[in-house]
Amino acid sequence: MQGIDVQEAAARIRGHVHRTPVLTSSYFNALTDARLFFKCENFQRIGAFKFRGASNAILALSDEHARNGVITLSSGNHGQAVALAARIRGIPAYIVMPESAPAAKRKAVEGYGGLVTLARVKSIEELPATMEKVKAETGATLIHPFDDPKVISGQGTATLELLKDVPNLNVVIAPVSGGSLLSGTSIAAKNINKSIQLWGAEPEMADDAFRSLRDGVRYPATDSKTMADGLRASLSERTFAILRENVNGIIPVSEREIADTTRSIWERMKIVVEPSGAVPLAAVIKRPDAFRGQRVGVIFSGGNLDLDRLPWMQLE
Amino acid sequence: MQGIDVQEAAARIRGHVHRTPVLTSSYFNALTDARLFFKCENFQRIGAFKFRGASNAILALSDEHARNGVITLSSGNHGQAVALAARIRGIPAYIVMPESAPAAKRKAVEGYGGLVTLARVKSIEELPATMEKVKAETGATLIHPFDDPKVISGQGTATLELLKDVPNLNVVIAPVSGGSLLSGTSIAAKNINKSIQLWGAEPEMADDAFRSLRDGVRYPATDSKTMADGLRASLSERTFAILRENVNGIIPVSEREIADTTRSIWERMKIVVEPSGAVPLAAVIKRPDAFRGQRVGVIFSGGNLDLDRLPWMQLE
Repeated sequence: MQGIDVQEAAARIRGHVHRTPVLTSSYFNALTDARLFFKCENFQRIGAFKFRGASNAILALSDEHARNGVITLSSGNHGQAVALAARIRGIPAYIVMPESAPAAKRKAVEGYGGLVTLARVKSIEELPATMEKVKAETGATLIHPFDDPKVISGQGTATLELLKDVPNLNVVIAPVSGGSLLSGTSIAAKNINKSIQLWGAEPEMADDAFRSLRDGVRYPATDSKTMADGLRASLSERTFAILRENVNGIIPVSEREIADTTRSIWERMKIVVEPSGAVPLAAVIKRPDAFRGQRVGVIFSGGNLDLDRLPWMQLE
Repeated sequence: MQGIDVQEAAARIRGHVHRTPVLTSSYFNALTDARLFFKCENFQRIGAFKFRGASNAILALSDEHARNGVITLSSGNHGQAVALAARIRGIPAYIVMPESAPAAKRKAVEGYGGLVTLARVKSIEELPATMEKVKAETGATLIHPFDDPKVISGQGTATLELLKDVPNLNVVIAPVSGGSLLSGTSIAAKNINKSIQLWGAEPEMADDAFRSLRDGVRYPATDSKTMADGLRASLSERTFAILRENVNGIIPVSEREIADTTRSIWERMKIVVEPSGAVPLAAVIKRPDAFRGQRVGVIFSGGNLDLDRLPWMQLE
């Protein structure tokens, strides 16, 4: 794929990203009748894989493009990732978020040195205009959350590490939203082993990637309220093309399945994984036929969530 | 100390216990101005250090004493630990708990093959009589939760591992309840480095060990409702004597400090530690003067708790 180089990304961000551990669980192995290897990006800096892509994109900028800083539109993990990567590069990061964003998310970005611009907008569709305005004023370079070859390359480095630690995987499964993680994952894995299977997983409430791959038509995001709040975006032309080529299929899971799996991970493995990060394991549990007897790499993509509002409490 | 041999325990239980990881956190290092090394017994089998002591005691039994099984009184981690260790030895485990014990705790013990006897008692003081009755009927051998040299030796093995991974610690801090963990910890540490400092930590609401060491008089447990539900017992003569000899002091912490620290651990480190397990870090945060600039081993003793009733939600 043009401009996507996972090995180069790994070399660039080495020393800046954590090499996260791969954990196993006899409980989940028995439950799924498979051998599961969990790549724990919840232990990544800023608490999610997003730091890999953002730091690769920002460290790769020419001095000219970096000079006036970087900008992005995100109230989530990508905003924190851009803020921290920009701090490492020593340039300003402008993070545009809606006025309605929770104070905790603003604070998190500011904690990494990000400059938050609150957009007074009536709907989320108006946000890009605010961003364009700040971009024009500052001359900052956009770091897109997923539609960027450097971001995709960076996200793939998690799977490079995973396959170094566990070389003989048959399958890798990752969550899908805008598709940068699953795209990077699939390219990293196929480069090492052409016959490895790639699966995506997403919430039924935001199953645009599932429908897009099924129908061969790229669908827009629905205005989804899924608790897997990192998985509400939709594919770009670029990530759609990569996934069509590399991915066996996408498995949608229900809100109940996401909540129950998140809870089981905490209870059995004693680690905090956010609902979006639990989606791939929920898919493996839901579709044992696809994974039985396989050696499966499962990307736990992040661990950031509001600890006052746990997923399983939202469904009671 | 008579009958206490941590090295022997480590050799006996090797292959049965997990060698748990030691984690660090730049956030908590900065917060405390110390270098903290967290021994993660929340990742131990059954989710707590208790499996170390129980498995050492049960594997050390003569065939004659093992023949009729083992018995204990516990609705908590020790009951699960005895059940699992007995299953490994291939003998029955009788776990006596009050009828009021939560169904989840009963199920957990039964999940490890334990035979639960529910005692219909009006107060907790009547429980030992029920246990004595079952013991007489079955001929099972009592595995005391803390007042047992083999249990103390087993608990100490966590610190043996910790000091192998991080040899140059100046201080180790562990929670204190009946005192087997802190006793075993102190003996393991002092055997390796006589000048190492040992601290205990406990809830203000169950500060009997603090008062006992301060006054040189062994106080009984209060009927405490502290959220650190693993720390409600009081010292035995044996553990009291060991702690008097080995321990610099005990630091009591408030319920608010326990809840806040538990939450911070989850949020910052993305791991699930139960309130009892967060108590030592709460103590380090509370008393920076005692730990500033030191290399501190902190025992995260366990990760079992009711995920529907989080500590910080109980205090609102």
